Amino acid sequence: MTAHHVVIVGAGFGGLAATQALAGAPVRITMIDQRNHHLFQPLLYQVGTAVLATSEIAWPIRFLLRSRPEVSTLLGIVSGVDTQKRNVLLEDGAVVPYDSLIVATGVRHAYFGHDEWERYAPGLKTLEDATAIRRRVLLSLERAERESDPQRLAALLTFVIVGGGPTGVELAGAIVELVYQNLVGQFRHIDTKKARVLLIEAGPGILPSFAPDLSAYAHRALQRLGVEVHVNCAVTDCNSDGVVAGGRPIAADVILWAAGVRASPAAVWLGAPADKAGRVQVAADLTVPGHPEVFVIGDTATVNVWNGKPAPGIAPAAKQQGQHVGRSIKRRLAGDSQSRAFRYRHSGDLATVGKRSAVIDFGWCKVKGYIAWWVWGLAHIYFLIGLRNRLAVALSWLWIYLTGSRSACLITQVDHNNKTPRV
Amino acid sequence: MTAHHVVIVGAGFGGLAATQALAGAPVRITMIDQRNHHLFQPLLYQVGTAVLATSEIAWPIRFLLRSRPEVSTLLGIVSGVDTQKRNVLLEDGAVVPYDSLIVATGVRHAYFGHDEWERYAPGLKTLEDATAIRRRVLLSLERAERESDPQRLAALLTFVIVGGGPTGVELAGAIVELVYQNLVGQFRHIDTKKARVLLIEAGPGILPSFAPDLSAYAHRALQRLGVEVHVNCAVTDCNSDGVVAGGRPIAADVILWAAGVRASPAAVWLGAPADKAGRVQVAADLTVPGHPEVFVIGDTATVNVWNGKPAPGIAPAAKQQGQHVGRSIKRRLAGDSQSRAFRYRHSGDLATVGKRSAVIDFGWCKVKGYIAWWVWGLAHIYFLIGLRNRLAVALSWLWIYLTGSRSACLITQVDHNNKTPRV
Repeated sequence: MTAHHVVIVGAGFGGLAATQALAGAPVRITMIDQRNHHLFQPLLYQVGTAVLATSEIAWPIRFLLRSRPEVSTLLGIVSGVDTQKRNVLLEDGAVVPYDSLIVATGVRHAYFGHDEWERYAPGLKTLEDATAIRRRVLLSLERAERESDPQRLAALLTFVIVGGGPTGVELAGAIVELVYQNLVGQFRHIDTKKARVLLIEAGPGILPSFAPDLSAYAHRALQRLGVEVHVNCAVTDCNSDGVVAGGRPIAADVILWAAGVRASPAAVWLGAPADKAGRVQVAADLTVPGHPEVFVIGDTATVNVWNGKPAPGIAPAAKQQGQHVGRSIKRRLAGDSQSRAFRYRHSGDLATVGKRSAVIDFGWCKVKGYIAWWVWGLAHIYFLIGLRNRLAVALSWLWIYLTGSRSACLITQVDHNNKTPRV
Repeated sequence: MTAHHVVIVGAGFGGLAATQALAGAPVRITMIDQRNHHLFQPLLYQVGTAVLATSEIAWPIRFLLRSRPEVSTLLGIVSGVDTQKRNVLLEDGAVVPYDSLIVATGVRHAYFGHDEWERYAPGLKTLEDATAIRRRVLLSLERAERESDPQRLAALLTFVIVGGGPTGVELAGAIVELVYQNLVGQFRHIDTKKARVLLIEAGPGILPSFAPDLSAYAHRALQRLGVEVHVNCAVTDCNSDGVVAGGRPIAADVILWAAGVRASPAAVWLGAPADKAGRVQVAADLTVPGHPEVFVIGDTATVNVWNGKPAPGIAPAAKQQGQHVGRSIKRRLAGDSQSRAFRYRHSGDLATVGKRSAVIDFGWCKVKGYIAWWVWGLAHIYFLIGLRNRLAVALSWLWIYLTGSRSACLITQVDHNNKTPRV
C-alpha cells in the first residue's frame, strides 16, 4: 500500500505553509509549480525599482523542500483537473494522480476586461514582471536623455501608477525617490527632478484597507515626496500615448498597473463556482463543494472567514489557510473526519511610503512615520527565508540608506526585435 | 569654442580606462554603449552557474561616471562611422560628431562559420547569455527529474562545454560542482551525481596560454572533480541531439560554447583592415591607419605589442590600451603630437578549477591549488568596482563555501511561446 498522495499546485505562501503543516503525516507530497522558485511577493516592487536583486527575494522550491524526502517538486504547467478520476493534468500531457489536492495558484493582475491594456501598463506579480518594470522605468529615462522634442520629453518623464493599494503606494514612493534622489546627477541633458510621478486611484482614498487617518497620512507623505496623488479618478483607457484618467488624457511612456487582480483559472479546472474575479467559492473548511478531497486556498479562493468577509489577499491569509488545510488532511488520516471551518486572524496591514516612512494598522494600534518604517523593515527581513537572504537584503537596504545609490539599476532582456511599442 | 569632443564606443574595461585616463583633460566625452551597464566579465560564468546575482557584477555606466560632469552617457546602438565627416552613426538615425574616436566594442562568441550552432550552444558574453545558460542548465535537470525514457534521461543529464580556455574550464568546474555537490539531495527521481560533464578541446591541452605543468594540473584537477576532459577532440557539429566531437556523436541537451570569438563589426564601420577574427589591424599607437584621430582598443583590435604577438583578450590588456589611448589624446591636446607605440605588460594568467583550486601563471612564478584559489578570489574581489559589490560577492562566496548552497538557482525568462528546441 502506498502512502496517501497529496498534490499541491503552487509553491506560494499558501502551498508552502500546507507542506509545512503536513510534516510528519503519513503522506507523500508532490509540489507542482510552473516556476522553479518561491517568490517573496511583498518585496517584489523593490526588484521593480532597482533596490533588490531577483535572487534576494526568490528561492528554488526544491531547495526549500530538500530536507523533506517525502516531497517531490515538479516543474510543470497545470492545464486542468479531472476531479472524477482524481488526476491533475499538465500542459505537456502528463497526468499526476492525487488522493488530496490543494490548489494555491494565486492571482494575476487584471484589467477590468481590457486585456489589451497589459502591453501598455504591465503589472507586478512575477520576477519577470519586476525586471520588465525596471527596464521600462530606466529605458524611459535613457530615452529622455536623448530626446529633443519637449512634448515627447514630457511623456518620457511621466510615470503613472494606476491603483492606490499597498503595491501602487509602494511603487510610487520607490519611483519618486529613484528619480528625485538616487539618480540625481547621473544625467547630463535632463533633470530627473522634473519627472512627474502620478498615483491614480478610482476610489475616494488610497490604501482603502487602512484606517482613514493612516490613509490620509500616506496621502500627505506621498505628496511631500513629490507624488501627484489623484483620488476619485478612474482610468478609462491605456494606450501608446498614455492613460485617460478622470476623463483627461495624460501623456506618459511608463504606466504601471496595480489596480486589479484576477484569480488563476482554478475554478475552470475544477468546474467549481467562482466570484467575478474568478475566485473559487469554497466551503467554510476551504474544500470545493462536493469534493471534500479538493482544497482551494489563498488568493484563488473566496469564503467569508473574517467577520463575515473574505480574507484579504495578503501573505498571512494564504499562510493561515495553507496551515489549516495541511492540518485538516493530517487529522483526516488520523481518523478524525469532522470538518472544521477556517477562521482568519488578521494581524494587521502595513505599507511603506518611500524610504523613511510607513503606515501600520494593527487594528488595536496604529503606527505611522519613521518608527513604522523600521517596524516594516524588520518585519520583512524576519519573514524572509533563511539567513543568507536576510543578510543580503539588509546589506542592500543599509547601502541605499547610507549612500543613496541603488545597486540594481540594470536594463536587461531588451528585445531588439520586439515590434510592440516601447518595451 | 567648444572643447575637444572624445566619443568612446563601449563601456567595457578598455572604454572605462580611457575615460579615467582622460580625467582633467580639456575635453568633453560621450560614452556610447548599447547596454546601460558595465559588466565584470571575468565572473560572468558564476552568474551562468547560479553562484552570483546579475547585479553583483554589473554597474550602470552613468552611475560609474556620475562624478565626471564632462562625460555624457548615451544608450544607443552604433550602426556605422563616417570617418570622413567624423560622425558616429546610431541605428535610430542619430549622428554623434567626434574629434577623437575610441572604439572598444569587444567581441562576441563565434562558431567558425557555423552560426546555426548558436541556438544549440549558447556562449557567454552578456548578462542575458549568463541567465540563458543558467536557465538551460537548471531546466535540463528539471526535465530529467520528470523523464522516464533512459536515453532521453541520459541526454538531459549530459553537459558539454566546448572550448578548454579559462571560460570553458571555469564553466566545467562550476557545473560539475553544482550537480555533484550543491544540488545533491534536492531531486527525488534522478541522482544528479550521475550527470556527465564533458569539456571538449580541439587543441592538445586545456588552458593553452598557461605553462604546460599548470595546464596538466588543471586537467587532472578537473578530472578529480568528475569532469570528462577530451583534448585533441574537434567539434564538427552541434544540433538538437547534441554534438559530434572527435567524429563521435554525444547526446546532450546542454551544450555551452567557449571555443571562439569574433570581433564586433568595428572594422566594417571604419573600413579598416582586419584579421580573420574581424579584429581591426591598428598601428603601433593603436590608431587606425590613415586616421590618427580614431583608436581601436581591447579585443576589437590586433597589433603585435607583446614580444611580437598581439595582446591576449583579457581585461588587463584592454585596460592598459584604454589608458594608453587616453594619455595619447591628452598629450596631443597639450601640443605633443609624437605618436607613442603601445607596449603590453603581461602580469599573468589565472583560472579557477572548481571551488578550492586555481592555477596562476605569473611567468616568473607559478601557483596552483588551494593557495592559488585564494589569490584568485582576492584578486577578483579587489578588481570589482566599489565596496558594495565587493561585500555582496564576498558574502555570496562565503555562503557557498560554508553551506554549499548556491543562492541564484533561478529559472527566469522562460519563453513559453518559443518554438525553437529546448530553450
